[in-house]
Amino acid sequence: MNKYDKNGTTSYCFGTTLCFELLLRAPEEALNLYISSKQKRDETYDKLVTLAHLNHIPVIENNEKIFRLADKDNVMCIGEFKKFNKPLDPTKNHVVLVNPSNMGNLGTILRSCAAFSVGGLAIIKPAADAFDPKCVRSSMGAIFSVPFHYYDSFEEYEKEALSRSYYPFMLKAKASLKDAKKKEPYSLVFGNEATGLDDSFLAVGKPLIIPQSSQVDSLNLDNAVSIALYGFLD
Amino acid sequence: MNKYDKNGTTSYCFGTTLCFELLLRAPEEALNLYISSKQKRDETYDKLVTLAHLNHIPVIENNEKIFRLADKDNVMCIGEFKKFNKPLDPTKNHVVLVNPSNMGNLGTILRSCAAFSVGGLAIIKPAADAFDPKCVRSSMGAIFSVPFHYYDSFEEYEKEALSRSYYPFMLKAKASLKDAKKKEPYSLVFGNEATGLDDSFLAVGKPLIIPQSSQVDSLNLDNAVSIALYGFLD
Repeated sequence: MNKYDKNGTTSYCFGTTLCFELLLRAPEEALNLYISSKQKRDETYDKLVTLAHLNHIPVIENNEKIFRLADKDNVMCIGEFKKFNKPLDPTKNHVVLVNPSNMGNLGTILRSCAAFSVGGLAIIKPAADAFDPKCVRSSMGAIFSVPFHYYDSFEEYEKEALSRSYYPFMLKAKASLKDAKKKEPYSLVFGNEATGLDDSFLAVGKPLIIPQSSQVDSLNLDNAVSIALYGFLD
Repeated sequence: MNKYDKNGTTSYCFGTTLCFELLLRAPEEALNLYISSKQKRDETYDKLVTLAHLNHIPVIENNEKIFRLADKDNVMCIGEFKKFNKPLDPTKNHVVLVNPSNMGNLGTILRSCAAFSVGGLAIIKPAADAFDPKCVRSSMGAIFSVPFHYYDSFEEYEKEALSRSYYPFMLKAKASLKDAKKKEPYSLVFGNEATGLDDSFLAVGKPLIIPQSSQVDSLNLDNAVSIALYGFLD
Protein backbone atom coordinates (compact mmCIF):
# COMPACT_ATOMS: atom_id res chain seq x y z
CA MET A 1 0.00 0.00 0.00
CA ASN A 2 1.60 3.23 -1.16
CA LYS A 3 -1.19 5.68 -0.45
CA TYR A 4 -3.39 6.25 2.56
CA ASP A 5 -6.46 4.03 2.27
CA LYS A 6 -9.63 5.28 3.94
CA ASN A 7 -10.84 1.70 4.31
CA GLY A 8 -7.52 0.29 5.45
CA THR A 9 -6.43 -0.46 9.01
CA THR A 10 -3.43 1.87 9.22
CA SER A 11 -2.68 5.55 8.72
CA TYR A 12 0.33 7.86 8.66
CA CYS A 13 1.66 11.01 10.23
CA PHE A 14 4.14 13.13 8.29
CA GLY A 15 7.16 14.93 9.72
CA THR A 16 9.20 14.67 12.89
CA THR A 17 6.86 16.75 15.09
CA LEU A 18 3.89 14.45 14.46
CA CYS A 19 6.08 11.33 14.75
CA PHE A 20 7.11 12.55 18.21
CA GLU A 21 3.46 13.04 19.15
CA LEU A 22 2.65 9.52 17.96
CA LEU A 23 5.52 7.93 19.89
CA LEU A 24 4.92 9.96 23.04
CA ARG A 25 1.13 9.86 23.25
CA ALA A 26 0.08 6.68 21.45
CA PRO A 27 3.15 4.41 21.22
CA GLU A 28 0.90 1.33 21.46
CA GLU A 29 -0.61 2.24 18.07
CA ALA A 30 2.72 2.88 16.30
CA LEU A 31 3.81 0.30 13.72
CA ASN A 32 6.76 1.66 11.78
CA LEU A 33 8.89 4.77 11.50
CA TYR A 34 10.01 5.47 7.92
CA ILE A 35 13.02 7.72 7.48
CA SER A 36 14.36 9.25 4.30
CA SER A 37 18.08 9.08 3.60
CA LYS A 38 17.81 12.87 3.25
CA GLN A 39 16.58 13.30 6.86
CA LYS A 40 19.21 15.28 8.78
CA ARG A 41 20.91 13.09 11.37
CA ASP A 42 20.75 15.70 14.12
CA GLU A 43 19.78 15.67 17.80
CA THR A 44 16.06 15.62 17.00
CA TYR A 45 16.59 12.61 14.78
CA ASP A 46 18.58 10.83 17.48
CA LYS A 47 15.82 11.44 20.03
CA LEU A 48 13.14 10.20 17.67
CA VAL A 49 15.01 7.02 16.83
CA THR A 50 15.77 6.38 20.51
CA LEU A 51 12.07 6.79 21.29
CA ALA A 52 11.20 4.34 18.51
CA HIS A 53 13.70 1.80 19.82
CA LEU A 54 12.39 2.16 23.39
CA ASN A 55 8.91 1.33 22.07
CA HIS A 56 10.17 -1.49 19.82
CA ILE A 57 9.05 0.33 16.68
CA PRO A 58 11.07 -0.62 13.58
CA VAL A 59 12.98 2.29 12.00
CA ILE A 60 13.09 1.77 8.24
CA GLU A 61 14.98 3.82 5.65
CA ASN A 62 12.84 3.90 2.51
CA ASN A 63 12.84 7.04 0.32
CA GLU A 64 10.49 5.67 -2.28
CA LYS A 65 7.81 4.72 0.23
CA ILE A 66 7.99 8.16 1.83
CA PHE A 67 7.75 9.94 -1.49
CA ARG A 68 4.75 7.84 -2.58
CA LEU A 69 2.93 8.32 0.71
CA ALA A 70 3.57 12.02 1.15
CA ASP A 71 3.51 13.04 -2.50
CA LYS A 72 5.85 15.86 -1.52
CA ASP A 73 9.56 16.42 -1.56
CA ASN A 74 9.92 17.92 1.88
CA VAL A 75 8.67 15.04 4.04
CA MET A 76 11.65 13.15 5.50
CA CYS A 77 9.95 11.07 8.13
CA ILE A 78 6.64 9.21 8.38
CA GLY A 79 5.07 7.34 11.27
CA GLU A 80 2.73 4.47 10.42
CA PHE A 81 0.13 3.60 13.02
CA LYS A 82 -2.89 1.32 13.54
CA LYS A 83 -6.23 3.07 13.37
CA PHE A 84 -7.58 2.98 16.89
CA ASN A 85 -10.99 3.15 18.44
CA LYS A 86 -11.79 4.18 21.99
CA PRO A 87 -15.31 4.44 23.38
CA LEU A 88 -15.95 7.82 25.02
CA ASP A 89 -16.15 8.13 28.79
CA PRO A 90 -19.82 8.99 29.55
CA THR A 91 -18.86 10.85 32.73
CA LYS A 92 -16.83 13.44 30.82
CA ASN A 93 -17.68 16.55 28.77
CA HIS A 94 -17.86 16.01 25.02
CA VAL A 95 -17.94 17.88 21.75
CA VAL A 96 -20.37 16.33 19.24
CA LEU A 97 -19.96 17.02 15.52
CA VAL A 98 -22.92 16.07 13.38
CA ASN A 99 -21.74 15.28 9.83
CA PRO A 100 -18.54 17.35 9.70
CA SER A 101 -17.26 17.26 6.12
CA ASN A 102 -13.93 19.06 6.18
CA MET A 103 -10.80 17.19 7.30
CA GLY A 104 -8.87 20.35 8.10
CA ASN A 105 -11.67 21.58 10.37
CA LEU A 106 -11.92 18.20 12.06
CA GLY A 107 -8.19 18.20 12.84
CA THR A 108 -8.27 21.76 14.14
CA ILE A 109 -11.23 20.86 16.36
CA LEU A 110 -9.25 17.94 17.82
CA ARG A 111 -6.46 20.45 18.51
CA SER A 112 -8.86 22.81 20.30
CA CYS A 113 -10.37 19.88 22.24
CA ALA A 114 -6.87 19.10 23.51
CA ALA A 115 -6.25 22.76 24.37
CA PHE A 116 -9.45 22.87 26.44
CA SER A 117 -9.13 19.37 27.93
CA VAL A 118 -12.38 18.10 26.42
CA GLY A 119 -13.13 14.54 27.54
CA GLY A 120 -13.99 13.26 24.08
CA LEU A 121 -15.13 14.03 20.57
CA ALA A 122 -18.19 12.26 19.14
CA ILE A 123 -18.47 12.28 15.35
CA ILE A 124 -21.82 11.44 13.77
CA LYS A 125 -21.63 9.78 10.34
CA PRO A 126 -21.57 10.51 7.46
CA ALA A 127 -18.45 12.46 8.34
CA ALA A 128 -14.89 13.27 7.31
CA ASP A 129 -12.21 10.71 8.12
CA ALA A 130 -10.21 11.71 11.21
CA PHE A 131 -7.44 9.27 10.28
CA ASP A 132 -6.74 10.88 6.93
CA PRO A 133 -3.16 12.21 7.08
CA LYS A 134 -4.53 15.71 6.30
CA CYS A 135 -6.64 15.60 9.45
CA VAL A 136 -3.81 14.06 11.49
CA ARG A 137 -1.65 16.97 10.35
CA SER A 138 -4.12 19.73 11.15
CA SER A 139 -4.72 18.16 14.59
CA MET A 140 -1.01 18.82 15.31
CA GLY A 141 -0.96 15.44 17.02
CA ALA A 142 -4.06 15.98 19.17
CA ILE A 143 -5.56 12.96 17.38
CA PHE A 144 -3.23 10.86 19.56
CA SER A 145 -4.44 12.36 22.84
CA VAL A 146 -8.14 13.31 22.50
CA PRO A 147 -10.50 10.30 22.63
CA PHE A 148 -12.86 10.34 19.65
CA HIS A 149 -15.46 7.91 18.37
CA TYR A 150 -17.72 7.59 15.31
CA TYR A 151 -21.46 6.94 15.67
CA ASP A 152 -23.99 5.98 13.02
CA SER A 153 -26.55 8.44 14.35
CA PHE A 154 -27.06 11.06 17.03
CA GLU A 155 -29.51 8.65 18.71
CA GLU A 156 -26.80 6.01 18.97
CA TYR A 157 -24.50 8.56 20.61
CA GLU A 158 -27.24 9.66 23.04
CA LYS A 159 -27.72 6.04 24.18
CA GLU A 160 -24.05 5.57 24.96
CA ALA A 161 -23.51 9.02 26.42
CA LEU A 162 -25.99 8.43 29.27
CA SER A 163 -27.49 11.29 31.25
CA ARG A 164 -25.98 14.68 30.46
CA SER A 165 -26.75 18.27 29.41
CA TYR A 166 -26.93 18.99 25.69
CA TYR A 167 -26.11 22.39 24.23
CA PRO A 168 -26.72 22.44 20.47
CA PHE A 169 -25.17 25.50 18.79
CA MET A 170 -27.66 26.95 16.31
CA LEU A 171 -28.29 30.29 14.66
CA LYS A 172 -31.99 29.86 15.49
CA ALA A 173 -31.31 29.45 19.24
CA LYS A 174 -32.76 32.14 21.50
CA ALA A 175 -30.27 31.87 24.39
CA SER A 176 -26.74 33.27 24.08
CA LEU A 177 -23.57 31.41 24.98
CA LYS A 178 -22.83 34.42 27.23
CA ASP A 179 -25.80 33.55 29.47
CA ALA A 180 -25.54 29.75 29.37
CA LYS A 181 -25.96 27.93 32.66
CA LYS A 182 -23.38 25.17 32.46
CA LYS A 183 -24.20 21.80 33.96
CA GLU A 184 -21.64 18.98 33.74
CA PRO A 185 -21.22 16.54 32.17
CA TYR A 186 -22.22 18.32 28.98
CA SER A 187 -22.14 17.85 25.24
CA LEU A 188 -21.61 20.83 22.95
CA VAL A 189 -23.25 19.89 19.64
CA PHE A 190 -22.43 21.38 16.22
CA GLY A 191 -23.78 20.75 12.73
CA ASN A 192 -22.25 20.43 9.31
CA GLU A 193 -20.13 23.32 7.91
CA ALA A 194 -22.63 24.24 5.22
CA THR A 195 -26.00 23.40 6.76
CA GLY A 196 -25.60 23.58 10.56
CA LEU A 197 -27.91 21.52 12.77
CA ASP A 198 -31.42 20.88 11.52
CA ASP A 199 -34.41 22.28 13.40
CA SER A 200 -35.00 19.03 15.30
CA PHE A 201 -32.09 20.03 17.55
CA LEU A 202 -34.11 23.00 18.82
CA ALA A 203 -35.83 20.37 21.01
CA VAL A 204 -32.54 18.89 22.27
CA GLY A 205 -31.31 20.30 25.61
CA LYS A 206 -30.61 24.05 25.65
CA PRO A 207 -29.83 25.46 22.20
CA LEU A 208 -27.32 28.33 22.26
CA ILE A 209 -26.15 30.95 19.81
CA ILE A 210 -22.75 32.63 19.70
CA PRO A 211 -23.59 36.35 19.53
CA GLN A 212 -22.48 37.59 16.09
CA SER A 213 -23.29 40.26 13.57
CA SER A 214 -25.63 39.75 10.67
CA GLN A 215 -22.73 40.62 8.32
CA VAL A 216 -21.79 36.95 7.87
CA ASP A 217 -23.82 33.79 7.48
CA SER A 218 -22.00 32.14 10.36
CA LEU A 219 -18.60 31.52 11.87
CA ASN A 220 -16.24 28.89 10.53
CA LEU A 221 -17.03 25.57 12.27
CA ASP A 222 -13.75 25.14 14.12
CA ASN A 223 -13.86 28.77 15.25
CA ALA A 224 -17.39 28.27 16.60
CA VAL A 225 -16.30 25.14 18.50
CA SER A 226 -13.29 26.94 19.98
CA ILE A 227 -15.39 29.89 21.12
CA ALA A 228 -17.95 27.54 22.70
CA LEU A 229 -15.21 25.63 24.53
CA TYR A 230 -13.75 28.88 25.82
CA GLY A 231 -17.23 30.06 26.84
CA PHE A 232 -17.74 26.84 28.82
CA LEU A 233 -14.51 27.24 30.81
CA ASP A 234 -15.16 27.96 34.46
CA MET B 1 -3.56 36.99 -17.63
CA ASN B 2 -4.93 33.51 -17.01
CA LYS B 3 -3.83 32.94 -13.43
CA TYR B 4 -4.06 35.07 -10.33
CA ASP B 5 -0.97 37.26 -10.11
CA LYS B 6 0.16 38.29 -6.64
CA ASN B 7 1.78 41.40 -8.07
CA GLY B 8 -1.10 42.27 -10.39
CA THR B 9 -3.83 44.82 -9.81
CA THR B 10 -6.85 42.53 -9.95
CA SER B 11 -8.06 39.38 -8.23
CA TYR B 12 -10.91 36.90 -8.50
CA CYS B 13 -13.66 35.31 -6.46
CA PHE B 14 -14.96 31.89 -7.47
CA GLY B 15 -18.57 30.74 -7.38
CA THR B 16 -21.95 32.45 -7.22
CA THR B 17 -21.97 33.00 -3.43
CA LEU B 18 -18.75 35.02 -3.49
CA CYS B 19 -19.79 36.86 -6.66
CA PHE B 20 -22.94 37.96 -4.83
CA GLU B 21 -20.81 39.18 -1.91
CA LEU B 22 -18.62 41.15 -4.31
CA LEU B 23 -21.54 42.77 -6.10
CA LEU B 24 -23.46 43.51 -2.91
CA ARG B 25 -20.64 44.72 -0.65
CA ALA B 26 -17.98 46.11 -2.96
CA PRO B 27 -19.61 46.77 -6.36
CA GLU B 28 -17.24 49.73 -6.92
CA GLU B 29 -14.32 47.26 -7.08
CA ALA B 30 -16.00 44.78 -9.47
CA LEU B 31 -14.66 44.67 -13.03
CA ASN B 32 -16.12 41.65 -14.82
CA LEU B 33 -18.38 38.70 -14.16
CA TYR B 34 -17.30 35.58 -16.08
CA ILE B 35 -19.93 32.91 -16.59
CA SER B 36 -19.46 29.39 -17.90
CA SER B 37 -21.87 28.08 -20.52
CA LYS B 38 -22.41 25.22 -18.05
CA GLN B 39 -23.71 27.57 -15.32
CA LYS B 40 -27.37 26.71 -14.63
CA ARG B 41 -29.65 29.51 -15.81
CA ASP B 42 -31.79 29.45 -12.67
CA GLU B 43 -33.21 32.12 -10.38
CA THR B 44 -29.84 32.62 -8.61
CA TYR B 45 -28.19 33.20 -11.96
CA ASP B 46 -30.86 35.69 -12.98
CA LYS B 47 -30.41 37.64 -9.75
CA LEU B 48 -26.64 37.71 -10.14
CA VAL B 49 -26.79 38.93 -13.72
CA THR B 50 -29.37 41.56 -12.79
CA LEU B 51 -27.11 42.75 -9.99
CA ALA B 52 -24.18 42.93 -12.41
CA HIS B 53 -26.23 44.95 -14.92
CA LEU B 54 -27.42 47.34 -12.19
CA ASN B 55 -23.77 47.99 -11.34
CA HIS B 56 -22.70 48.23 -14.99
CA ILE B 57 -20.44 45.19 -14.66
CA PRO B 58 -19.93 43.32 -17.96
CA VAL B 59 -21.19 39.70 -17.92
CA ILE B 60 -18.93 37.61 -20.14
CA GLU B 61 -19.36 33.98 -21.16
CA ASN B 62 -15.89 32.43 -21.37
CA ASN B 63 -15.41 28.78 -20.37
CA GLU B 64 -11.72 28.69 -21.13
CA LYS B 65 -10.89 31.71 -18.98
CA ILE B 66 -12.86 30.24 -16.08
CA PHE B 67 -11.15 26.89 -16.37
CA ARG B 68 -7.69 28.47 -16.51
CA LEU B 69 -8.34 30.74 -13.55
CA ALA B 70 -10.03 28.21 -11.30
CA ASP B 71 -8.09 25.13 -12.35
CA LYS B 72 -11.17 23.14 -11.40
CA ASP B 73 -14.15 21.73 -13.23
CA ASN B 74 -16.84 22.79 -10.82
CA VAL B 75 -16.42 26.58 -10.93
CA MET B 76 -19.07 28.09 -13.21
CA CYS B 77 -18.81 31.74 -12.30
CA ILE B 78 -15.93 34.09 -11.44
CA GLY B 79 -15.95 37.72 -10.36
CA GLU B 80 -12.93 39.84 -11.27
CA PHE B 81 -12.26 42.83 -9.06
CA LYS B 82 -9.68 45.58 -8.52
CA LYS B 83 -7.43 45.11 -5.51
CA PHE B 84 -8.45 47.81 -3.09
CA ASN B 85 -6.80 49.60 -0.24
CA LYS B 86 -8.55 51.35 2.62
CA PRO B 87 -6.72 52.96 5.53
CA LEU B 88 -8.04 51.78 8.90
CA ASP B 89 -10.18 54.06 11.04
CA PRO B 90 -8.03 54.90 14.11
CA THR B 91 -11.12 55.38 16.30
CA LYS B 92 -12.20 51.75 15.88
CA ASN B 93 -11.14 48.42 17.41
CA HIS B 94 -8.65 46.42 15.34
CA VAL B 95 -7.15 42.98 15.04
CA VAL B 96 -3.42 43.09 14.22
CA LEU B 97 -1.72 40.07 12.64
CA VAL B 98 2.06 40.15 12.74
CA ASN B 99 3.44 38.10 9.82
CA PRO B 100 0.54 35.70 9.22
CA SER B 101 1.68 33.11 6.68
CA ASN B 102 -1.37 30.99 5.92
CA MET B 103 -3.94 32.25 3.41
CA GLY B 104 -6.70 30.00 4.74
CA ASN B 105 -6.21 31.33 8.27
CA LEU B 106 -6.15 34.91 7.03
CA GLY B 107 -9.47 34.45 5.22
CA THR B 108 -11.08 32.77 8.22
CA ILE B 109 -9.88 35.62 10.44
CA LEU B 110 -11.51 38.13 8.08
CA ARG B 111 -14.71 36.07 8.41
CA SER B 112 -14.52 36.16 12.20
CA CYS B 113 -13.76 39.90 12.13
CA ALA B 114 -16.98 40.39 10.18
CA ALA B 115 -18.90 38.17 12.61
CA PHE B 116 -17.69 40.25 15.56
CA SER B 117 -17.92 43.64 13.80
CA VAL B 118 -14.22 44.42 14.16
CA GLY B 119 -13.39 47.90 12.83
CA GLY B 120 -10.36 46.77 10.85
CA LEU B 121 -7.62 44.23 10.32
CA ALA B 122 -3.98 45.38 10.27
CA ILE B 123 -1.55 42.97 8.61
CA ILE B 124 2.17 43.42 9.28
CA LYS B 125 4.47 42.32 6.43
CA PRO B 126 5.92 39.91 5.48
CA ALA B 127 2.52 38.29 5.34
CA ALA B 128 0.19 36.11 3.28
CA ASP B 129 -1.69 37.79 0.44
CA ALA B 130 -5.30 38.55 1.41
CA PHE B 131 -6.25 38.99 -2.25
CA ASP B 132 -5.24 35.48 -3.23
CA PRO B 133 -8.42 33.69 -4.40
CA LYS B 134 -7.79 31.04 -1.68
CA CYS B 135 -8.01 33.71 1.00
CA VAL B 136 -10.98 35.39 -0.68
CA ARG B 137 -12.70 32.02 -0.61
CA SER B 138 -11.99 31.20 3.03
CA SER B 139 -13.16 34.70 4.01
CA MET B 140 -16.59 33.74 2.62
CA GLY B 141 -16.76 37.25 1.20
CA ALA B 142 -15.78 39.07 4.41
CA ILE B 143 -12.83 40.46 2.46
CA PHE B 144 -15.37 42.76 0.77
CA SER B 145 -16.74 44.13 4.05
CA VAL B 146 -13.95 44.20 6.67
CA PRO B 147 -11.44 47.04 6.16
CA PHE B 148 -7.90 45.69 6.11
CA HIS B 149 -4.52 47.27 5.46
CA TYR B 150 -0.91 46.10 5.11
CA TYR B 151 1.91 47.78 7.05
CA ASP B 152 5.67 47.39 6.63
CA SER B 153 6.21 47.17 10.37
CA PHE B 154 4.36 47.16 13.67
CA GLU B 155 5.86 50.60 14.35
CA GLU B 156 4.31 51.96 11.17
CA TYR B 157 0.92 50.61 12.28
CA GLU B 158 1.31 52.12 15.77
CA LYS B 159 1.94 55.56 14.27
CA GLU B 160 -1.22 55.45 12.15
CA ALA B 161 -3.37 53.79 14.80
CA LEU B 162 -2.98 56.72 17.23
CA SER B 163 -3.74 56.34 20.93
CA ARG B 164 -5.33 53.03 21.86
CA SER B 165 -5.01 49.98 24.15
CA TYR B 166 -2.87 47.09 22.94
CA TYR B 167 -3.50 43.48 23.97
CA PRO B 168 -0.84 41.17 22.52
CA PHE B 169 -1.81 37.48 22.80
CA MET B 170 1.18 35.48 24.01
CA LEU B 171 1.78 32.18 25.75
CA LYS B 172 4.24 34.00 28.04
CA ALA B 173 1.64 36.53 29.19
CA LYS B 174 0.71 36.44 32.87
CA ALA B 175 -2.83 37.87 32.63
CA SER B 176 -5.70 35.77 31.33
CA LEU B 177 -8.19 36.85 28.69
CA LYS B 178 -10.86 35.97 31.30
CA ASP B 179 -9.66 38.81 33.55
CA ALA B 180 -8.84 41.38 30.89
CA LYS B 181 -9.97 44.94 31.53
CA LYS B 182 -11.14 46.11 28.13
CA LYS B 183 -10.54 49.71 27.14
CA GLU B 184 -11.67 50.95 23.72
CA PRO B 185 -10.44 51.56 21.12
CA TYR B 186 -8.23 48.48 21.31
CA SER B 187 -5.96 46.35 19.16
CA LEU B 188 -5.78 42.59 19.69
CA VAL B 189 -2.35 41.55 18.43
CA PHE B 190 -1.34 38.05 17.27
CA GLY B 191 1.91 36.59 15.97
CA ASN B 192 2.82 34.19 13.21
CA GLU B 193 1.28 30.67 13.19
CA ALA B 194 4.54 28.92 13.96
CA THR B 195 6.42 31.38 16.12
CA GLY B 196 3.85 33.62 17.83
CA LEU B 197 4.85 37.12 18.90
CA ASP B 198 8.45 37.69 19.95
CA ASP B 199 9.26 38.67 23.52
CA SER B 200 9.44 42.37 22.69
CA PHE B 201 5.62 42.38 22.70
CA LEU B 202 5.66 41.61 26.44
CA ALA B 203 6.37 45.33 26.80
CA VAL B 204 3.47 46.39 24.52
CA GLY B 205 0.22 47.22 26.33
CA LYS B 206 -1.31 44.39 28.37
CA PRO B 207 -0.24 40.94 27.15
CA LEU B 208 -2.93 38.27 27.56
CA ILE B 209 -3.06 34.50 27.40
CA ILE B 210 -6.03 32.35 26.45
CA PRO B 211 -6.22 29.79 29.27
CA GLN B 212 -5.39 26.38 27.76
CA SER B 213 -3.97 23.02 28.76
CA SER B 214 -0.33 22.11 28.40
CA GLN B 215 -1.39 19.21 26.13
CA VAL B 216 -0.91 21.29 22.99
CA ASP B 217 1.68 23.84 21.94
CA SER B 218 -0.98 26.40 21.18
CA LEU B 219 -4.32 26.96 19.52
CA ASN B 220 -4.66 27.37 15.78
CA LEU B 221 -4.23 31.08 14.92
CA ASP B 222 -7.73 31.74 13.61
CA ASN B 223 -9.25 29.90 16.58
CA ALA B 224 -7.20 32.04 18.97
CA VAL B 225 -8.34 35.24 17.23
CA SER B 226 -11.99 34.14 17.34
CA ILE B 227 -11.81 33.32 21.05
CA ALA B 228 -10.17 36.68 21.78
CA LEU B 229 -12.86 38.54 19.81
CA TYR B 230 -15.57 36.66 21.68
CA GLY B 231 -13.79 37.38 24.99
CA PHE B 232 -13.76 41.11 24.16
CA LEU B 233 -17.50 41.28 23.47
CA ASP B 234 -19.35 43.28 26.10
